[in-house]
Amino acid sequence: MLQALKDAIIRDGVGIGTEVVKVDSFLNHRIDVKLVRQMGEAFAEAFRDDRIDLVLTIEASGIGAAIATAQSLGDVPVVFAKKGKTRNTSGDVYTAEVYSFTHQVTNVIRVDRKYLTAGMRVLIIDDFMANGEAVQGLRSVLEQAGCVCAGVGVCIEKGFQPGGNRLRSEGVKYVPLAVVDAIDHGRIILRDE
Amino acid sequence: MLQALKDAIIRDGVGIGTEVVKVDSFLNHRIDVKLVRQMGEAFAEAFRDDRIDLVLTIEASGIGAAIATAQSLGDVPVVFAKKGKTRNTSGDVYTAEVYSFTHQVTNVIRVDRKYLTAGMRVLIIDDFMANGEAVQGLRSVLEQAGCVCAGVGVCIEKGFQPGGNRLRSEGVKYVPLAVVDAIDHGRIILRDE
Repeated sequence: MLQALKDAIIRDGVGIGTEVVKVDSFLNHRIDVKLVRQMGEAFAEAFRDDRIDLVLTIEASGIGAAIATAQSLGDVPVVFAKKGKTRNTSGDVYTAEVYSFTHQVTNVIRVDRKYLTAGMRVLIIDDFMANGEAVQGLRSVLEQAGCVCAGVGVCIEKGFQPGGNRLRSEGVKYVPLAVVDAIDHGRIILRDE
Repeated sequence: MLQALKDAIIRDGVGIGTEVVKVDSFLNHRIDVKLVRQMGEAFAEAFRDDRIDLVLTIEASGIGAAIATAQSLGDVPVVFAKKGKTRNTSGDVYTAEVYSFTHQVTNVIRVDRKYLTAGMRVLIIDDFMANGEAVQGLRSVLEQAGCVCAGVGVCIEKGFQPGGNRLRSEGVKYVPLAVVDAIDHGRIILRDE
């Protein structure tokens, strides 16, 4: 957990209904670049001993934290999966389907084959963990490439949705920097760990 | 100009036909995070005395360089414009239409009104300058918000397309870190400055 992120969520996050956590003011639209650096340092510390060869994320909101993490891990490369509506039929890319509950649409993510080599130890970084569809799509890409998913780090987990617990139950090394346990009449309730 | 970027373009860039410069291996898909940091330092040095309040970019490939620049400018905030197909009709956002010659499609970019305050001095950062549509869209957003466009920095200008020269002729402070003058049978020819 990262106290600076928890503070930002409480101070600037907006809870809507029972499921939506808006952090547009420091993570998803406007970016607090000092916080991004701190998130990178926190992920790097958590995965320091996991011999990470590459950080994998997905456009667009995960890119900042992924770069910061890669820099703190000694300048390992970042690859960001691209999102599209259609399955690219060329053989040059790994693809996976990712359903977005938020937008109720299925996206296809793709990663160029030449940037993933069998045996690479890859750290997945993303901004949000909700139902976990994006991370599962990235894990599928890694599996197709014969890479090892050495861990998953997310900035904010929505603890009342199943993605985080699925990773925990599967024994994947999983590090969220903040967990939202509930949204209660606009108030965001964070897990205390 | 940034020698490390010029070296990367010559070493790893791929010239296709007479107009396409592919830098997927270090900028647009896989990211060389050390180079991103160097680009940020170069932009920050160029705009050090321009009293920048905020860095504005557009998802997704510009985000890395924008964050690095903002960090080197003393942790000013970044805002990235979001891209969509449709004009958001709520009054909460500034929008502009951006035509992509590459994809032959018109996107609508949008920035939440609350992140741009009249009088702010804003630095626009993007990965590529070709016809200049994206940067003109961002300038339109700044104008709507009453902000000052204090400068424009791009990683790579395609010097044979009109976007860069348009900015120069309008007297905007404009800093490209590398300029591709031509693509000749697959060979990328950089401007020597």
